[in-house]
Amino acid sequence: MPYVTVKMLEGRTDEQKRALVEKVTAAVAETTGASPDKVVVFIEDMQKSHYAVGGKRLSDAE
Amino acid sequence: MPYVTVKMLEGRTDEQKRALVEKVTAAVAETTGASPDKVVVFIEDMQKSHYAVGGKRLSDAE
Amino acid sequence: MPYVTVKMLEGRTDEQKRALVEKVTAAVAETTGASPDKVVVFIEDMQKSHYAVGGKRLSDAE
Amino acid sequence: MPYVTVKMLEGRTDEQKRALVEKVTAAVAETTGASPDKVVVFIEDMQKSHYAVGGKRLSDAE
Amino acid sequence: MPYVTVKMLEGRTDEQKRALVEKVTAAVAETTGASPDKVVVFIEDMQKSHYAVGGKRLSDAE
Amino acid sequence: MPYVTVKMLEGRTDEQKRALVEKVTAAVAETTGASPDKVVVFIEDMQKSHYAVGGKRLSDAE
Repeated sequence: MPYVTVKMLEGRTDEQKRALVEKVTAAVAETTGASPDKVVVFIEDMQKSHYAVGGKRLSDAE
Repeated sequence: MPYVTVKMLEGRTDEQKRALVEKVTAAVAETTGASPDKVVVFIEDMQKSHYAVGGKRLSDAE
Repeated sequence: MPYVTVKMLEGRTDEQKRALVEKVTAAVAETTGASPDKVVVFIEDMQKSHYAVGGKRLSDAE
Repeated sequence: MPYVTVKMLEGRTDEQKRALVEKVTAAVAETTGASPDKVVVFIEDMQKSHYAVGGKRLSDAE
Repeated sequence: MPYVTVKMLEGRTDEQKRALVEKVTAAVAETTGASPDKVVVFIEDMQKSHYAVGGKRLSDAE
Repeated sequence: MPYVTVKMLEGRTDEQKRALVEKVTAAVAETTGASPDKVVVFIEDMQKSHYAVGGKRLSDAE
C-alpha cells in the first residue's frame, strides 16, 4: 500500500518501464510517507484500437 | 473527462469497436454536458476463460 | 455483460445520471449486439481534489 | 452483483482458474447473502514485467 | 498478490465484510497456491443511484 | 495519457495529495516520454474497513 496503476499506450521499452516503476515508487513514498517497499505498481498497456478520445480511436486517427 | 471503460467479451469486430466509441462518446456528452472531445473511452476485451457468472466460466459452460 | 464504468467529476444531477445510463446502455447494445438488459453501467463520481491533469488537481486550479 | 476482480500473476492452470471462480463465488455468496448465480468474477492475469513491489518489477528481480 | 476487488451494493454489515475478506482470502489461497498473508482484498461499496442494469438504475427501479 | 490511479488509505493531507500528483506526473513524464500536461492522475482513498491483507481488515487489526 499504496497501489499505483499506470495505464498507457503499448510500445514503451523494457528500460522505460523499469525506470517508470522506480521513479513512481520514489515519488509516492516521498509524498505520502509510505515506505518504498510497500508501494505496489501495476502497468497496463493499451492498444491504439482500444483507446479513444473525442469519439475516435487512436488507431482510426492515423 | 469523463472516462468510460467498456469491459466486454473479446470477438467484436474493428467496425463494431469504432461505432461503440463513437456512440458511447455521443451518449455521454449529450447527457452529462461534457464536451465530446473531452470524453475518453477505454475498451477492455475479456477472454471466456477469465469471466465467470454463478461460479462457472463461460469457457467451461460450452 | 458488457460492463461499462463511467468515471466523472461529481456534481451531475440525478436526472443527468438517469439519462446517462439509459443512453450509454442503448449505445452499447446497438453497436456490440449485446442485449440491453445484459448491459451493466457503474457510475464513479470523482472529487476535484482527487483528479489531476498536468500535475495539478482541479481543486488547486481554481 | 457482487462483481469480483482477481488480479494475479499469469501462469495459473486452467484447472486452478476453474476452482478459483467456483470457490470465490461460494465465499462471496455465503458471506454477503447474494445469490450465487448473481456473482460475477473477472480474472486479470499480470505479466511479471508489469508488476512491481518496492520499485522493482518481478521480472527484474529474477 | 493476488489482489481481489469486491464491488457490491452498499449496506452489508461490518460483520459480513469481516467474514467476506476472510472467506475470499481462503478461497483464493486454496485454489491459486498463493500464501494467505499475501492475498489483498479491496471492498468497493456502490450506491443504488450509481449502478444500472438494462439501462435502469436500481434507485429508479424502486 | 498516461492515466495513473493511486489507491491508498484515507487520511493524507491536502498538501500531501497536491505534492503526490505533482511528483507522480513528473516521474511518469520523465520516464515514458509523455508530455506532462497529458498525464492524468486519479486518487482513490480507501477506508481501513474496506482493505484487507492476509484475510484481516486493517480496521479489525487495531
